[in-house]
This record gives sequence, structure tokens and C-alpha cells, in this order.
Amino acid sequence: MITSANGRQVRLVEKLNRQAKARRENGLFVVEGRKEALEAPIPRIEAVYYTEAARDAAEILVKKGLNPEAAREVAPEVFRKMADTQTPQGILALVKIRHSSVEELLKTSGGIPPLFLILEDLQDPGNVGTILRMSEAAGVTGVIVSRNTADIYSPKTVRATMGAIYRVRTAETEDVAATLRELNQNGVQTCAAWLPGSLSYTEVDYRKATAFVIGNEGNGLKQETAEAAGLRIRIPMQGGVESLNAAVAATVLAYEAARQRLLS
Amino acid sequence: MITSANGRQVRLVEKLNRQAKARRENGLFVVEGRKEALEAPIPRIEAVYYTEAARDAAEILVKKGLNPEAAREVAPEVFRKMADTQTPQGILALVKIRHSSVEELLKTSGGIPPLFLILEDLQDPGNVGTILRMSEAAGVTGVIVSRNTADIYSPKTVRATMGAIYRVRTAETEDVAATLRELNQNGVQTCAAWLPGSLSYTEVDYRKATAFVIGNEGNGLKQETAEAAGLRIRIPMQGGVESLNAAVAATVLAYEAARQRLLS
Repeated sequence: MITSANGRQVRLVEKLNRQAKARRENGLFVVEGRKEALEAPIPRIEAVYYTEAARDAAEILVKKGLNPEAAREVAPEVFRKMADTQTPQGILALVKIRHSSVEELLKTSGGIPPLFLILEDLQDPGNVGTILRMSEAAGVTGVIVSRNTADIYSPKTVRATMGAIYRVRTAETEDVAATLRELNQNGVQTCAAWLPGSLSYTEVDYRKATAFVIGNEGNGLKQETAEAAGLRIRIPMQGGVESLNAAVAATVLAYEAARQRLLS
Repeated sequence: MITSANGRQVRLVEKLNRQAKARRENGLFVVEGRKEALEAPIPRIEAVYYTEAARDAAEILVKKGLNPEAAREVAPEVFRKMADTQTPQGILALVKIRHSSVEELLKTSGGIPPLFLILEDLQDPGNVGTILRMSEAAGVTGVIVSRNTADIYSPKTVRATMGAIYRVRTAETEDVAATLRELNQNGVQTCAAWLPGSLSYTEVDYRKATAFVIGNEGNGLKQETAEAAGLRIRIPMQGGVESLNAAVAATVLAYEAARQRLLS
């Protein structure tokens, strides 16, 4: 049992909770909570830390194939140091980060035309998590995040995904406009959510391979990004509203694509 | 100029920021920030407090018709006590709460068939604010909140509405099922977002008078509420997702209604 609050493993977990850089360097992120740990794919679990109160959950993971040596009991006061939440449930797992390349996303959309959501510089971790969860539900086959988007593996985002973090395929890009050009060349119709756009989002056929690009909460899309997209589409807004929340805009577009695809 | 941090007005603002009960008893809520204060409808402004740095914003409000005696300058250190945000912009307004009755909402939908969103016991203030903002954009003519929903006039919710708090008509209900029966009797088609529902939300005509009911984030709708609705509709979810975020579900439904109404 780990009883020292200053050991190597405790410090690693604290760092993984706090720093995107540490997550990137170690290729690991933290999932906290009983349900969340039990949902983690066994081959991607690097380590599990639990208190006596959650020993049964750790045992379930071992029964499902987790190497018993990867599960370590921790004293409750040490666990509280490792935990990001205020009322920790006594179990957390370190899970391997897995990003795909855009080429891989293009190849593996499960036999249907790809449906991508590209997030440019979104800042709110809750928004990003909500979008990942919604994306899985709407049948989005890949989410591509710009390097300046809030890290999808931060504790707050992971919680907001409600497990979708394990299942939605993701890729990272340093240059959204270049990614759009790559998608255009591969026959993907690229659609930028663009406030000054003149084409309503309802006038486009999304049954073919499609990518939507959503911009930053405050500033919207970069001009260069909007210009690199094949279509600039507008979500009609009534009343005095000047813009939509990024997760709301992503939902409107992804569910319109889902509606068209399910009806066809 | 107000220089005492313990005066009656300072204590009132602090209470209005913290307690739904104080907001209800005084019939007032607080809006903070330059843009937010300048957007407030003049006849509903009860008082404005500003620091020297934001005097110009207060002067604009007086030019727009605000009684000059309603605007009071405050010492910066006192303003920081009044402010809910960490980096206050030096101006806040106390604005009169205005709820409509359900009967009023039925009468005043601007000549189009009413489109209502009913929120049952939503707990997340950010979600509620996002839903109000989205509702205005989608052309929802009234939002009805259950008494146990997070107060729409809390500082966090007001901020998330981005000004829609002034413009979206709202009503409160103690009994969601009774409200649904009242709407049914008035010819409004009532649709409960219901996970076990067998009717897809895309199969319903929302061009007629319609009300959607959205349930609590964790528990969904109460059985009694779902039964009181005329239709129980399902939003298709792919992958391993078990439920949608309440704001996501509200967006899918309200924007499908908007799509049908704008196309017709």
C-alpha cells in the first residue's frame, strides 16, 4: 500500500492532473471515479490507484484482464492528494492517450462517409467535453482539435465527456487551414460555421463525407480558416443573439448531419 | 460616492449575488459588466453602481433615460466587494425580475404558433444560461422553468445568457405535469424528451404550437411528467452514449423546430 504522499507515483498523478505538458510527455491521462475507471479499455490502462473503499472496483478490473501489479492500494489521505475532485470516489486510473492521424481518420469511419468535427482554439474545457460526448451520440467519426484548443485530456474535459473520451477517435492539428486543404483534396466537403455566411446550414447535403469547423468562443473562426473551407455556412439566429455557444453550434450541425444520414 | 463597504446598498448587492431567495424577495437581479449593463432595458433598471473607470458607461445609461439619481459612484475597493467576478469591469446594475404567467406566454408569441421549452429541475447554472441564449436564437417564444431548476437570475446564469436574459420571456411553474395538462388543453402539442421513447424527434411536425420538456441532467424527466406529455420523443444516440447533456438535447429539439418553421 502506498502511504507516502511524496512518492514518485503520487507526484506523477498530481502532475498529470495539472499540466497538459506532463500528459503529453507521459502519454497518459487520469480518469477518476468508479464508473469512469470501470469503463476504461483494459489494454489502455497503465495503472490503477484505489483506497480500501473502492477495492471491489479494482478487483473487477483485474478480473477483466488488468495486470494485478498495475493496481495499487493507496492510503485515503494519499488518495485525496492524487484526486482532482472534492469528494473522490476512491479510484482513479492512468490511461494511455491515443490520437489518430487525419489519414487514419479518413480510412476508418466504419464503412460510412466520414463525418468530422474540427475545433479551432476552443478555450472552455467543459465545452470541449460536451462536444466530444455529443459527437459520439451524433455519429461523428472523428474530432480534430487545433493545438491551441483546451486539452481534451484535462480532468474537467474528461469528466464532461462521460466516457466518450475512450470511444471518439481524435486527431490533433497544428494548422487548421492546412488540414482543411488536405480534407478537400481527399473529397471531404469542408463546412465552416461562419456568422457572416450566406448559405444556411440546412441547404447542404451532409450524407457525403463532411467536416464541420467550429471557431473559438469569443473570436469565432480565423479568416484564413474560413477561407480554406469549401463552404461557409450560417446557423440562423433570431432575436438579439450575436453568436451561439460553441457546443450549441456544434450540436446543431452534427445533429443535422445525423438527421439527414438516418433518414436517407 | 459610496465609500463604506458595510452600507445598506453594498449588503443588498452581495445578498442578491448570493441568494436566490433575496432575488425573489426584492424582485431584483444583478448584471455585471459594461456590455451587460448597457444592454439592460432602461425601465427595468433599479440602480447602477460604477467606479470612476466606468463613469462613461453610467453616463450613457443616463443619456438613454436612466434617472441620474439611480446611478451611484462607488469606491473601487467597495465595488470589488459588490462584484461577483474576479476582474470586475467597474459597473453593475440591479435589474427588475420579470416573469410572465403561462397564460401570458400563450397569448404573446408574436403572431407565430408558440414554441416553448420547459426545464424540469435542471441543476447546472451554466446549462440553464446556455439554454436561454440558444432559445432566443432558435425562436423559442417562452421558457418555463420548474421551481427546482437553478435560478435563471443567478450571476453565473445571467452571464451565460449573454443578454438573452432581458429578451427571452420566461415563466415559473411549481408543477410541470399540471403545466403540461394546461398546455394540452390550450392546443399545444407537448413533447417530452424521453430516453426510452420510441418516436424519433425527427418524425414530428413542430410548425404547430409546441412545447418541449427537458429533464434533470442526472435523472432525466420524472415519470409523471413524461406521462403528462402528449408525445414522448427520443433523440437518436449512437455509440456508447447513455444520455445527452441537457443543453445539447434542448438545442437539438429547438433547432429542429426552427428548421421546420423556417423551411415552411
